[in-house]
Amino acid sequence: MKKEIIVYSISDSLGGTSQKLLSAVTAQYPDILFNNSYRFPFINQEEELLDILRDAIKDDALVISTLVDGRLAAAAREFSQAHGLSYLDLMHPFFEIIRQKTGTSPIEVPGTLHRLDTEYFNKISAIEFAVKYDDGKAPQGFLDSDLVLLGVSRTSKTPLSIYLANKGYKVSNLPLIPQVPLPQVLEKVEKKRLIGLLCEPEKLAKIRSNRLNSLGLTQSSSYTDLEKIYEELDYSREVFKKYQAHVINITDKSIEETAYLIEEHLKTLL
Amino acid sequence: MKKEIIVYSISDSLGGTSQKLLSAVTAQYPDILFNNSYRFPFINQEEELLDILRDAIKDDALVISTLVDGRLAAAAREFSQAHGLSYLDLMHPFFEIIRQKTGTSPIEVPGTLHRLDTEYFNKISAIEFAVKYDDGKAPQGFLDSDLVLLGVSRTSKTPLSIYLANKGYKVSNLPLIPQVPLPQVLEKVEKKRLIGLLCEPEKLAKIRSNRLNSLGLTQSSSYTDLEKIYEELDYSREVFKKYQAHVINITDKSIEETAYLIEEHLKTLL
Repeated sequence: MKKEIIVYSISDSLGGTSQKLLSAVTAQYPDILFNNSYRFPFINQEEELLDILRDAIKDDALVISTLVDGRLAAAAREFSQAHGLSYLDLMHPFFEIIRQKTGTSPIEVPGTLHRLDTEYFNKISAIEFAVKYDDGKAPQGFLDSDLVLLGVSRTSKTPLSIYLANKGYKVSNLPLIPQVPLPQVLEKVEKKRLIGLLCEPEKLAKIRSNRLNSLGLTQSSSYTDLEKIYEELDYSREVFKKYQAHVINITDKSIEETAYLIEEHLKTLL
Repeated sequence: MKKEIIVYSISDSLGGTSQKLLSAVTAQYPDILFNNSYRFPFINQEEELLDILRDAIKDDALVISTLVDGRLAAAAREFSQAHGLSYLDLMHPFFEIIRQKTGTSPIEVPGTLHRLDTEYFNKISAIEFAVKYDDGKAPQGFLDSDLVLLGVSRTSKTPLSIYLANKGYKVSNLPLIPQVPLPQVLEKVEKKRLIGLLCEPEKLAKIRSNRLNSLGLTQSSSYTDLEKIYEELDYSREVFKKYQAHVINITDKSIEETAYLIEEHLKTLL
């Protein structure tokens, strides 16, 4: 049986900050089951904080804190030391190193990450852009795009577009289908903004087959047939060549990895 | 003039883990300019690591590491101590506290966060779902949705849908327009899955006006006219009441905050 660790996440805001780091950490322990459902957002009173820590002792929990308030964080640290509670403060070691380096103290205002500033609204716009110009729905959007993703069905165009939109890029995408003429506007897009997505044919056949299953559809032979897939991919390679798209093979890559390669490609062109 | 700190981010994988925490930390220093463009992914050789750290000394940089490899992390720590370099290891304090608690060591396999597992593919599916069923495009998707968001134009339905999809929820949304009949299928959706989004009329008028500007359109009076907006919002309230939707006022809330309230609502219904 797997060991289980209960994780308490304490924050004076929503508590989203700790979650990505926690995912990366827990991924290093395949033999431990982490129960991460104990989240305590908007904590700003010492009494409620200490109540949570007392519960954490009962649950033998690991406590992670992204409290920015120095007084609360100190209270939690002292309580944890006094009671042998496993407690990790993610913010204050960072604050301390910045204080050493610059002599500057944090403003200790919770939730400043969620402030509604220009960067925030740009990101929201980019997400709306990606949804609006997904799947070649409105090719005129290509000209306003930072990136136009091209590829046959199931080469991860949509999730990639959204992932890159979350990073602030305006992304559109176009499915490549041999019988369907390409929109003329594609010729006017700057070459460096065109990304061609490829995938191994066997892998693509498998992905498509799974896709049909998950949609509860019967297998359509032309969609999953390996010979047809070879034809589609050949066609897409021709398109990439003609339009001088930057080509990335997505086989066995996560969205994060492919997005990283796309960003690196953009950097080389600055 | 603002102080500037150069931040070096070192990782043995893509290096995405540190970025959210870094954003939360830097948000606490409005008077410091953090230059976060120095990212070093896929570091797995001690020599290249030490080269980076030597550059960090020249740049007077703050170094943050998400290296999982214990040998590399130890080399970085020793080098930093010997040379007075500001160095923060985000992973190993976590590993150490888990070791103390359970006696278990991390597997030290870089990039395990990007493994292509069921959770990963569910998230991808959820994102494709949200894009497909955005903006009432295919109301039959309501029945397969974990959540159906309802609201007049510019109540953040699309970015909310995508944000929740990133957390694995299948979300569709429907714009409410007084003259447009509601799809019949709405009556079959479980009440608890219906979320009604409201916004203060004045705020909505401002958001819409900004939206038209950003699209380079001239102001359309019915879209930004306060009286019309009152009518639209009244209509949306009627719909929420009729369908017993759970209502959330999004005025001045970030997407993260609204999503949090939606998740809390879902919890109460489990």
